[in-house]
Amino acid sequence: MNHTDWKLLKEIAELEKTPQGAYNIRRNGQLDSRASTANIEITTKTEPDKPGIDIRIKSGTRNESVHIPVIITQTGMSEMVYNDFFIGEDCDVDIVAGCGIHNTGCETSQHDGEHTFYVGKNSKVRYVERHYGEGPGTGKRVMNPRTVVYLEEGASIHMETTQIRGVDSTKRETKVVAARGAEVVITEKLLTHGDQTAESDMEIILDGADANGRVISRSVAQDGSRQVFYPRMTGNAKCFGHVQCDSIIMGQAKISSIPAIVANSVDAQLIHEAAIGRIAGDQILKLMTLGLTEQEAEEKILDGFLQ
Amino acid sequence: MNHTDWKLLKEIAELEKTPQGAYNIRRNGQLDSRASTANIEITTKTEPDKPGIDIRIKSGTRNESVHIPVIITQTGMSEMVYNDFFIGEDCDVDIVAGCGIHNTGCETSQHDGEHTFYVGKNSKVRYVERHYGEGPGTGKRVMNPRTVVYLEEGASIHMETTQIRGVDSTKRETKVVAARGAEVVITEKLLTHGDQTAESDMEIILDGADANGRVISRSVAQDGSRQVFYPRMTGNAKCFGHVQCDSIIMGQAKISSIPAIVANSVDAQLIHEAAIGRIAGDQILKLMTLGLTEQEAEEKILDGFLQ
Repeated sequence: MNHTDWKLLKEIAELEKTPQGAYNIRRNGQLDSRASTANIEITTKTEPDKPGIDIRIKSGTRNESVHIPVIITQTGMSEMVYNDFFIGEDCDVDIVAGCGIHNTGCETSQHDGEHTFYVGKNSKVRYVERHYGEGPGTGKRVMNPRTVVYLEEGASIHMETTQIRGVDSTKRETKVVAARGAEVVITEKLLTHGDQTAESDMEIILDGADANGRVISRSVAQDGSRQVFYPRMTGNAKCFGHVQCDSIIMGQAKISSIPAIVANSVDAQLIHEAAIGRIAGDQILKLMTLGLTEQEAEEKILDGFLQ
Repeated sequence: MNHTDWKLLKEIAELEKTPQGAYNIRRNGQLDSRASTANIEITTKTEPDKPGIDIRIKSGTRNESVHIPVIITQTGMSEMVYNDFFIGEDCDVDIVAGCGIHNTGCETSQHDGEHTFYVGKNSKVRYVERHYGEGPGTGKRVMNPRTVVYLEEGASIHMETTQIRGVDSTKRETKVVAARGAEVVITEKLLTHGDQTAESDMEIILDGADANGRVISRSVAQDGSRQVFYPRMTGNAKCFGHVQCDSIIMGQAKISSIPAIVANSVDAQLIHEAAIGRIAGDQILKLMTLGLTEQEAEEKILDGFLQ
């Protein structure tokens, strides 16, 4: 791996060297390196039409992590990858995924990934996913992640997804089904600029009694970019769900927020809030009186909003 | 008109006698009575395939009202009516519409109405519409209103729509386009019970600078009834829009709230809030300690919510 590869790994997974614990680094459509541990086994899928890996985590695994970053530095490269996570009972693990594309050419580089999580009873998963694009080429950088999560009784997932910069087009699909007493918390952060487009389609199904769901979506649309959000929270039992979408609109950008809350049980309690607006002028003024330029003040506010 | 007719008129338009000012009472698909005034002219449409009336209100008309109730007491009656309102500039008028169906038979009685409002510069319209069904028959009572409003510069409409009880199936469609400085305020109240279904599809387009929109939707779904809401607020200019949907779910009812806020301008500020939940148990308990039965307490809370 060269300097560009490491720069991408740092952006998407905060890696400066080979990670601790289990990992699988995919580079330009090939396995670059991999390590399993006593509790976490990573194997290549054997189906010829389904490239990707299986990650098996033994019941009772705690305080371990898995890193599975994907980097692409080859222009014109396009791939579809399937990763399945089989997580036993009573685990407590961190999973760090992400994709970085450095495109120097004129062809589109694209990574589509489908991650499916089967989370066993009372297991806790923290899932972090970062997307980042860069490179002087005119070729597009495209990422379409699909994430499907099945939470068994008492299981939980805390998902943090971030699209930092440089992704020309993305269509995100997320589906979570929560059984009795399960918990899902999704924090989504998205910044688009230039003429980028982003769509995020999310479906949270609170299926079991005392399931709990929370979605916090924060986005910034700059320049002529376009964003569309479809967060959907369905309550089929006694449950509590909260969806909150806040967007800052700038330049000639356009944003649509089209949430849905669906109560199929009298004991489902569901709340949705959404707001779209520009940065308040007085916030910028206040920071300018402290000595910042208008642009610095704007950046400060966006950093705070997306932190 | 008989006792049943007057009971329906009281429910939908609070009329106990022939109204003051301009009016048009439609009964079982026929004109029952009509009055125009010096400033408000009501005429029957002449297109054979478009039954209905035209209401022309002269510029400068103030503190006048138009009542246009529709009542149906005949089972198996089904009609589609088109009413167009041409409202001049600088008016300030009240328009009271509504439909009451008393169905004693076994066939469906249905009223579909399309109301289109052209509201001139700086005119203020208050539009009240009530829907109500009753009768011992097994025939359904169905009402599908479509309301389209074009607000010119500085015009405003305050719409209050209420579906009280007894409407088996309704599909409401509302579209408002607001020009510069125009204001739209919609208050929607809806109660469904039994196995009734209700759908409300609303589109508010804030098209001109300083347009202002506010939607307050309150609903109660009892028994096995179903409700679906699609309020959509689009900002194409410097504008402010706020959508608020609150629903109380009871019994085996199901409610979906699927709003959309769409910002097509950096100066559009749009907010949406929605909540679905059951009546809080402690609210009922509090009223019961004051001597109310559980059922009385529930009714009190619903009355307050929909008042």
